[in-house]
Amino acid sequence: MKLFDGGRAPNPRRVRVFLAEKGIEVPMVPVDMGALEHKAGEVASRNPLRRLPVLELDDGTIITESVAICRYFEELHPEPALFGRGALGRALVEMWQRRIEFNLFQPVAFAFRHIHPAMREWEVPQVPEWGEVNKPKAVEFLALLDKELASREFAAGDEFSIADITGLIAIDFMKPARIAVADELSNVLRWYRALAARPSAGA
Amino acid sequence: MKLFDGGRAPNPRRVRVFLAEKGIEVPMVPVDMGALEHKAGEVASRNPLRRLPVLELDDGTIITESVAICRYFEELHPEPALFGRGALGRALVEMWQRRIEFNLFQPVAFAFRHIHPAMREWEVPQVPEWGEVNKPKAVEFLALLDKELASREFAAGDEFSIADITGLIAIDFMKPARIAVADELSNVLRWYRALAARPSAGA
Repeated sequence: MKLFDGGRAPNPRRVRVFLAEKGIEVPMVPVDMGALEHKAGEVASRNPLRRLPVLELDDGTIITESVAICRYFEELHPEPALFGRGALGRALVEMWQRRIEFNLFQPVAFAFRHIHPAMREWEVPQVPEWGEVNKPKAVEFLALLDKELASREFAAGDEFSIADITGLIAIDFMKPARIAVADELSNVLRWYRALAARPSAGA
Repeated sequence: MKLFDGGRAPNPRRVRVFLAEKGIEVPMVPVDMGALEHKAGEVASRNPLRRLPVLELDDGTIITESVAICRYFEELHPEPALFGRGALGRALVEMWQRRIEFNLFQPVAFAFRHIHPAMREWEVPQVPEWGEVNKPKAVEFLALLDKELASREFAAGDEFSIADITGLIAIDFMKPARIAVADELSNVLRWYRALAARPSAGA
């Protein structure tokens, strides 16, 4: 198999961090997203949505969508479990992965893509008003998350999960999106620092 | 357990259709979303995001997010499998569930929520330009999906899955969002009619 990877972009990084946590090595095909290489050629022929990451299996089967690729590896290599354990554990990881994706990761991405001048060729058309509307959405969700993290170590419970990976990458993405984490969110900051200190964060 | 349900809104319906496909009956607590009852009271005290659906287990544990609630029932009642079978099957269902959610369900929801006058109290602030930008996104994805459905019965393969539920509800939601399915998308129309004819579609 091989993984078409997109470098610094958030979604490719979700898969790389996941693989690092699992201790799985997959041959990578680097794609220069800055040069929009994913909009044509070997990525576009494999993913009609022309996005990364893209996993190609040895028989040519294509899996796209970062979380779908992660789930494939979770099924093949169940330990450490990053999608939760048992019916309730798996439901709570799914819940927090989605809560963080829709209320933090995505608002941050909208703010970046619809406001940043470098995104003009990526997000067509940019709607700057939509970007601005999303900044307070991200800030409000972080306040909610801070209350949750007062009573547990990780987003979905006492074990690290894919919900934390989505959170780490969303918060890292706040810097180029020019949204600040408020100093008083001490639980979010403690959680973020612990995630950023894991070796996988460098993936 | 009990399920706080939101009537005609798309996300509550996703869970009801899923439960109907599984043949599972869960006691329902109807919530009048038209009267914004989910913004306070028994929903807000259970889900800080103040959204529906909300599943409460007998011990008081709360599960929110439609797909997380569905996954909980999938774990408890594996048959019929609606999240796929085997590592690859589960990955492909996740891939198509996400592709349909991010490229059809969500653009249709944005178009409805940011343009429709009845949504003024729900989506604050409405950004009509963002609503308009999303209409062609939904239309373009349907054209892509039409090519895919030329060679298979359901969104993620030869078996019905949660990806089809998300698709059915997204297409039903196109009517109030005022986006039309083009007549030439014969595979999408065949697929949609088959989904709409299943008894679960009435849930």
